[in-house]
Amino acid sequence: MHNWNDMIITKPFQRVIDVSSGDPHRAGMPPLSFARQVLAVCLYPKLLKESSFPVDVRQRAEKLLGACNGGSVGSYSASSCGIPQIQKSVAEFITKRDGGVASDPEDIIFSSGSQRTLKLVLHLLSSGQGPTQTGVLTPLPCPHTLPILLDEVGVKLVPYRLLEERGWTLELEELHRALKAARRHCEPRAIYISNPGNPTGHVQDLKTIEEVIRFAASERLVLLVEEVYQDSVFGQDKKFLSYKKVLFEMGASYSERVEMVSFHSISAGTMGECGLRGGYMEVINMDLLVKNFLTSMQGPCSPPVLPQLALEIMVNPPSPGDASYEVFTQKVETLTQNAQRACEFLNGVPGMSCQQAMGLYPCLHLPAEIIQEAKRSGLRADVLYCKKFLEEEGVCLGPGSENGHDDENYHIRLCISAPAAVLEDVLKRLQSFHLRIQDRHH
Amino acid sequence: MHNWNDMIITKPFQRVIDVSSGDPHRAGMPPLSFARQVLAVCLYPKLLKESSFPVDVRQRAEKLLGACNGGSVGSYSASSCGIPQIQKSVAEFITKRDGGVASDPEDIIFSSGSQRTLKLVLHLLSSGQGPTQTGVLTPLPCPHTLPILLDEVGVKLVPYRLLEERGWTLELEELHRALKAARRHCEPRAIYISNPGNPTGHVQDLKTIEEVIRFAASERLVLLVEEVYQDSVFGQDKKFLSYKKVLFEMGASYSERVEMVSFHSISAGTMGECGLRGGYMEVINMDLLVKNFLTSMQGPCSPPVLPQLALEIMVNPPSPGDASYEVFTQKVETLTQNAQRACEFLNGVPGMSCQQAMGLYPCLHLPAEIIQEAKRSGLRADVLYCKKFLEEEGVCLGPGSENGHDDENYHIRLCISAPAAVLEDVLKRLQSFHLRIQDRHH
Ligand SMILES: Cc1ncc(COP(=O)(O)O)c(C=O)c1O
Ligand SMILES: Cc1ncc(COP(=O)(O)O)c(C=O)c1O
Repeated sequence: MHNWNDMIITKPFQRVIDVSSGDPHRAGMPPLSFARQVLAVCLYPKLLKESSFPVDVRQRAEKLLGACNGGSVGSYSASSCGIPQIQKSVAEFITKRDGGVASDPEDIIFSSGSQRTLKLVLHLLSSGQGPTQTGVLTPLPCPHTLPILLDEVGVKLVPYRLLEERGWTLELEELHRALKAARRHCEPRAIYISNPGNPTGHVQDLKTIEEVIRFAASERLVLLVEEVYQDSVFGQDKKFLSYKKVLFEMGASYSERVEMVSFHSISAGTMGECGLRGGYMEVINMDLLVKNFLTSMQGPCSPPVLPQLALEIMVNPPSPGDASYEVFTQKVETLTQNAQRACEFLNGVPGMSCQQAMGLYPCLHLPAEIIQEAKRSGLRADVLYCKKFLEEEGVCLGPGSENGHDDENYHIRLCISAPAAVLEDVLKRLQSFHLRIQDRHH
Repeated sequence: MHNWNDMIITKPFQRVIDVSSGDPHRAGMPPLSFARQVLAVCLYPKLLKESSFPVDVRQRAEKLLGACNGGSVGSYSASSCGIPQIQKSVAEFITKRDGGVASDPEDIIFSSGSQRTLKLVLHLLSSGQGPTQTGVLTPLPCPHTLPILLDEVGVKLVPYRLLEERGWTLELEELHRALKAARRHCEPRAIYISNPGNPTGHVQDLKTIEEVIRFAASERLVLLVEEVYQDSVFGQDKKFLSYKKVLFEMGASYSERVEMVSFHSISAGTMGECGLRGGYMEVINMDLLVKNFLTSMQGPCSPPVLPQLALEIMVNPPSPGDASYEVFTQKVETLTQNAQRACEFLNGVPGMSCQQAMGLYPCLHLPAEIIQEAKRSGLRADVLYCKKFLEEEGVCLGPGSENGHDDENYHIRLCISAPAAVLEDVLKRLQSFHLRIQDRHH
């Protein structure tokens, strides 16, 4: 996320559009009105009398206020773990999502966003220097915020490559290769997974997840699983499977042993509430000291109330028959259409190819001349590409090198959670720019 | 804060009232409607059209939304430090409060509540074991959450006693005594100040603050100053002076040298928004690494938006002429009256005495028999007193031993931020209970 507006003087566009990272409201995406209405009523309960609000909004607000100490969002949560009823709601959501594999409310720790909590967990895992420094197996490409985060907590990024030609799959042999190579210069203690993958959109299948779990078990690695895009699986033939579900279906020898933290967030998916800062971790088989530390570093005084309420709404969105159901499904619909549209469109641009997902990560086939030009200016070609696109078209994309890609395959990162018209504008500009770039060099 | 409701079976009261800690909304205190209205509008901007909201509410909401990325509370803040305009607002508030002593927006770090940030700062200061363990000079009595917090981060509590007979003043000789005594078994690295004092309500004068600053300078102690009750000075002849102002008026040899963190919070005072979790630190002369750590541990992705907006409202409450000014002053008025009423009332109860403040901390003169009874049951007399009061009258007070008082002076802690009728009920119950206790033993 850059602030490019400052540098613009006279350009063939009115304002800069930033689709380089998932911040939908910044890109002008309307919020989920059900969530905002419920939270507004909770803040100012006199709005309960507002008949313009749908009835399910008022019912939900009353229910949530009933769970707050003193019936007010202004009170500290009942415990340092948060509001017990909401911890329970989250556990029920997980149990239902996982087809009955039970979730224990005690394993749910609220967070002020998944990135901060991931940082805390990594901070706990971090130790040593040189050959004893903690390493974390990290996919390439990975979320663009991750390399910085690992660096900040003093953890070594141990890369394992995802296979683009098979649709960004994770291959077991590659994990073994990466681990073996890493053991020479650090101590790998965890494996990080993003599923559905940021930025690739790839959704892991049962076999892969089982392989990763077996690998983590035999190599004694903590599993750190970001599953923040679990409600953003837009391809027809794919289905999100949680690591937790698979772990528990593999039997006690795994489910009682493998240490795992699964992260979810209200920032991602249909909710997209990045500014509220909220989420949860489900913490499995971790040392009690670690759990207590994670809880208490949120506190000491209990987590913020409003993000907890937003989380409750995320895990219990309006359902068929509710007054707000239609508005809710419209939002899901918009995201689905955006994902389809952008993917089809970009695959139709000569020299681009990508998969359908919440974020797109198309591969660029660049003319040799631009790669040369980049080299001369000491930049990577994807960075130069993004720089030119910003200057010529006023759109901020993310270069794949921010996602850890440092080879001769060039990618750009583009988030589709924007109003359809904005996205269409971005796509058209990208197409004409890309063709221009190719033409210039023919 | 305990959850006592569970243990009640048949009692001469309908519900338990908890006035043991400052959680006003839990005690049924109505929120500041201006703040709640503005936040509700920011969450659901269609309410801007709601003509039932005062015009200054709508204006403020528009202004605040204008400061948010994409005009939405749903976007990440512009920087990891938060929303720049609000950082600036806070610095302006401080500058004005301190009669022109400048505050630099870069020194303002937003927090998710002052306790969590205090914990982070202490975590940074904490090191060593045995005689090298970090110690922090801590007033007795201190906020009841502090001893646990120090313990959790592995810091030794080095007590300095406040002088009750002089109205809970801080005496320089006592600081020297405490420091000298402590140096035998730990390494004191900071001094913690609560001003206005929790739980005593004492407001420090210029001379005291200067003495503390000189002491911190010559002994190379970091000054950790909780000034969360700065807008809650209810006595007629007292005035809040910030450590920052005094420090800078003492000249460059102090203002460029003494390391200081001042904490403020939206949980305290007129605002009382404990559930939102927000506040700020002003960080003076601290190492840049420390500042960066404090910023980044909030992040990595920027602090929550709504608490920042609430903070902006706290530092810029409605002013004379604004539509919401009257409602705002009513709230201040209620708190002032509560503080006066409670103080006068308790000073009128035989065997009790206290000072006027946001929280009251009356001294109890207990009959010898109850002290004996407590000893027999292995409890401190203040704890037994609170236990009996809860059982007989359904009101939860805080025993002074939670505030670090461990001598033969007994105190109770009572927060006055409750609706006037609730407070009146509590006072009456306390009076009749206290007289009953005395009678039983005559
Ligand atoms: C991989 C990944 N993790 C986490 C998040 C959300 O982070 P946070 O919950 O800290 O806002 C995102 C973006 O929405 C993401 O892509
Ligand atoms: C001394 C002291 N510090 C801090 C707070 C507020 O803590 P927080 O900002 O974490 O809610 C209070 C209570 O309001 C307090 O009495």
